[in-house]
Amino acid sequence: MFVDFIADYYTNIEQYPVTSQLKPGYLRDLLPPSAPFEAEPIEEIMRDIQNHIIPGITHWQHPSHFAYFPCSASTAGILGEFLAAGLGVVGFNWAAAPAATELETVVMDWFGEMLNLPRTFLFSGEAAGGGVIMGTTCEAITVVLVAARDQKLDKIGRGEIGKLVVYCSDQTHCAFEKAAKVVGIQPGNIRAVETNKTTSFALSPDSLKSAIRADVAVGLVPLFLCATIGTTSTTAVDPLEPLCRVAKEHGGMWVHVDAAYGGSACICPEFRHVIDGVEGANSFSLNAHKWFLTTLDCCCLWTKDPNAIKKSLSTNPEYLKNRASESGHVVDYKDWQLTLSRRFRSLKLWLVLRSHGVGNLREFLRGHVAMAEAFERLVEGDERFEVVVPRRFSLVCFRMNDDDGGGNNLMNKKLLERINGSGRVLMTHAVAGGIYMLRFAVGATLTEPKHVMEAWKVVQQQADAIMQGV
Amino acid sequence: MFVDFIADYYTNIEQYPVTSQLKPGYLRDLLPPSAPFEAEPIEEIMRDIQNHIIPGITHWQHPSHFAYFPCSASTAGILGEFLAAGLGVVGFNWAAAPAATELETVVMDWFGEMLNLPRTFLFSGEAAGGGVIMGTTCEAITVVLVAARDQKLDKIGRGEIGKLVVYCSDQTHCAFEKAAKVVGIQPGNIRAVETNKTTSFALSPDSLKSAIRADVAVGLVPLFLCATIGTTSTTAVDPLEPLCRVAKEHGGMWVHVDAAYGGSACICPEFRHVIDGVEGANSFSLNAHKWFLTTLDCCCLWTKDPNAIKKSLSTNPEYLKNRASESGHVVDYKDWQLTLSRRFRSLKLWLVLRSHGVGNLREFLRGHVAMAEAFERLVEGDERFEVVVPRRFSLVCFRMNDDDGGGNNLMNKKLLERINGSGRVLMTHAVAGGIYMLRFAVGATLTEPKHVMEAWKVVQQQADAIMQGV
Repeated sequence: MFVDFIADYYTNIEQYPVTSQLKPGYLRDLLPPSAPFEAEPIEEIMRDIQNHIIPGITHWQHPSHFAYFPCSASTAGILGEFLAAGLGVVGFNWAAAPAATELETVVMDWFGEMLNLPRTFLFSGEAAGGGVIMGTTCEAITVVLVAARDQKLDKIGRGEIGKLVVYCSDQTHCAFEKAAKVVGIQPGNIRAVETNKTTSFALSPDSLKSAIRADVAVGLVPLFLCATIGTTSTTAVDPLEPLCRVAKEHGGMWVHVDAAYGGSACICPEFRHVIDGVEGANSFSLNAHKWFLTTLDCCCLWTKDPNAIKKSLSTNPEYLKNRASESGHVVDYKDWQLTLSRRFRSLKLWLVLRSHGVGNLREFLRGHVAMAEAFERLVEGDERFEVVVPRRFSLVCFRMNDDDGGGNNLMNKKLLERINGSGRVLMTHAVAGGIYMLRFAVGATLTEPKHVMEAWKVVQQQADAIMQGV
Repeated sequence: MFVDFIADYYTNIEQYPVTSQLKPGYLRDLLPPSAPFEAEPIEEIMRDIQNHIIPGITHWQHPSHFAYFPCSASTAGILGEFLAAGLGVVGFNWAAAPAATELETVVMDWFGEMLNLPRTFLFSGEAAGGGVIMGTTCEAITVVLVAARDQKLDKIGRGEIGKLVVYCSDQTHCAFEKAAKVVGIQPGNIRAVETNKTTSFALSPDSLKSAIRADVAVGLVPLFLCATIGTTSTTAVDPLEPLCRVAKEHGGMWVHVDAAYGGSACICPEFRHVIDGVEGANSFSLNAHKWFLTTLDCCCLWTKDPNAIKKSLSTNPEYLKNRASESGHVVDYKDWQLTLSRRFRSLKLWLVLRSHGVGNLREFLRGHVAMAEAFERLVEGDERFEVVVPRRFSLVCFRMNDDDGGGNNLMNKKLLERINGSGRVLMTHAVAGGIYMLRFAVGATLTEPKHVMEAWKVVQQQADAIMQGV
């Protein structure tokens, strides 16, 4: 029944408006105030899901969902999640879940090799590196920040946390600032280095160098650089090679590469260059749940230096002691992450890799990029519009452009509201360098060229209406 | 095929040894070194799961799994996870997932009411309280620690983080120490107050008071108390009412109640007294994935003061701005937690509550307690054994007791190894007050009285063999 339900959901998904049309508070009024004392028949529950839950869903898997970044599902990913839930394994250490632990090390090596990551990031490499699967990039960044923080404080003294400074760009995801605050970095010591349109909002190594020098001059201690491959607003690509050089020369910082969205594309040889220089970084993460079909959640983190993480995050309570851990020959993933308990996430990633194969996965990504290219050409072909920054990957940032005044932003905000109000497509917006733009992110698994064409029609219709003052 | 696979798994589960018999590294040798380029047929992948993954599993859902704490699965929980993966919704804020957000607020109120939590912890209460679902207790504790930390530093100055002290008992889960270190508490400022067997390893309010006074006397600042309802080693219950009083009178600390395992039992009126005094705490969490059938992961956190959490963890980047959030009338759960992206976890909790009903859920918990009581009587009836601490809930802590010397610990360690070596049951151990004990934790969904009887037989057989020097 449940399988049929999901199968039907995907069959009918195009009939739903992409985004829910309901108002805040709609559900509380529809449900009883308390849990039932008696068991309820499953048919009744399913009816409520169809009648009360589905209408309140923003359909992320809808082929006309072009908002945010994608969160791509697949049969393999969904069934992998189902299998993991069914097996009900808790993988905090090797002994509690040998197969889950070992599959994760194997799959992270497979995936790392597909991305052509340096072998220093892999278990099969000669060094101490390796990979781990977490829920989200926020967790991954927090983990490596804690490792870097403790490594630095061991050198300069535990009481000096107030002197540590972390660096990113003004385009870096807000997860970084949040993680920095969580681990105790002074809010005033988080440097979001300014970017601009001339470099497509990429972080400039020279600007970074200036920022570091200014901090060092007043006695602060550079700790950490978060570089991004595919920023959220415009998919900017920070240049890893020169940034890593600056970070190492000035203060020996830990460099983390947040490739949450853009990383997946690196399995295609033609996109791999965006992470050239990654060998100079300490850690690298991407979200396989964004553009790699695993369903939420599946953040893959590789690092050259798991030992730094383990030094910060290891726990060894008596009730978890066991022979395998004591042998030192196993991976206990609880020491690589914030949490103790962990799901068997490698299963779904393994299923995705095997049931699609590297070749098809590349074609899947290229298909999205080709659709985004097509959309970009449509935008460029209509003189009322402009592409704000050169497209990379499968996101097109565009806007209407009828004059050069400040009115553009307001007009484009209105355009987005009208587009989304149609219920036929969903896009979101960004502001970079003061420019309000619409984001058209191709990436839903079911999206086909016809959905892109239809989206463009919706954009044009709404632009027409705005021009005509309707 | 996948549904059949899981159905078969549960049909055959008793034929598997509870714990994997394989050696570290077994899987890497069985799998190819790289991901396949071509897609592989699903039948082949399933065959590998059966042949290579299943034998490497420690079967947490096996009815003879009495190790750690349970991680109880159910049809409703597994299918809820499947549905959530199938719908593929990302619920960072209301606008991105109205139904997921609203269902979570409703279900957390339902569950809170079942536990008879003070109305100040609920959305439907008159105050600002409410509940949120996270992955694990580690996340929940980190979140409330950050909120408490920032609230205190706002008063005493951001630079004073080195003065903050947090309190727990020497029985508190290691997750607390880890979380405290992550948020920047000096490792030397984590007070694990000593407990002893005379109070069944519960935290003494007088000992807490002494510890606080000593810290205040040297200029340190009390920040946080983590009390536990059902400690991992022995299910000790810290007395909330007097502990909250001490915590408030001495330094106005934030009190968090970690009821990860024991909390679920509070839906039964006869167990509710273990959280008497919870109205004096600031926050309360339990893991529905432990003893409440949801499958991993589902940590439920309620707090009187979400505003403190939001003050610390809110982010408001342009690319997530939307009308609903700006109205101030919706819950944006991204600001209640460490991570941005979040799964639709309320769905499985809702399915569990409805498809079982409160009455059956109480009976489910009582059944486990009754089986643990039966095991306790068996232990007590054999003069070679002792129950180390009075049983609460469904964990029995016991050991062999043939002399009063230090040899007991070694003998019991050997006993546990022999029991688990049989492959017929799995238990784990703890050490409290220097006493090594075996932990018999009833809680797997499929466990019946016959499995408890069989487990006792295994214990007796191995004890016989040890006594006979075999």
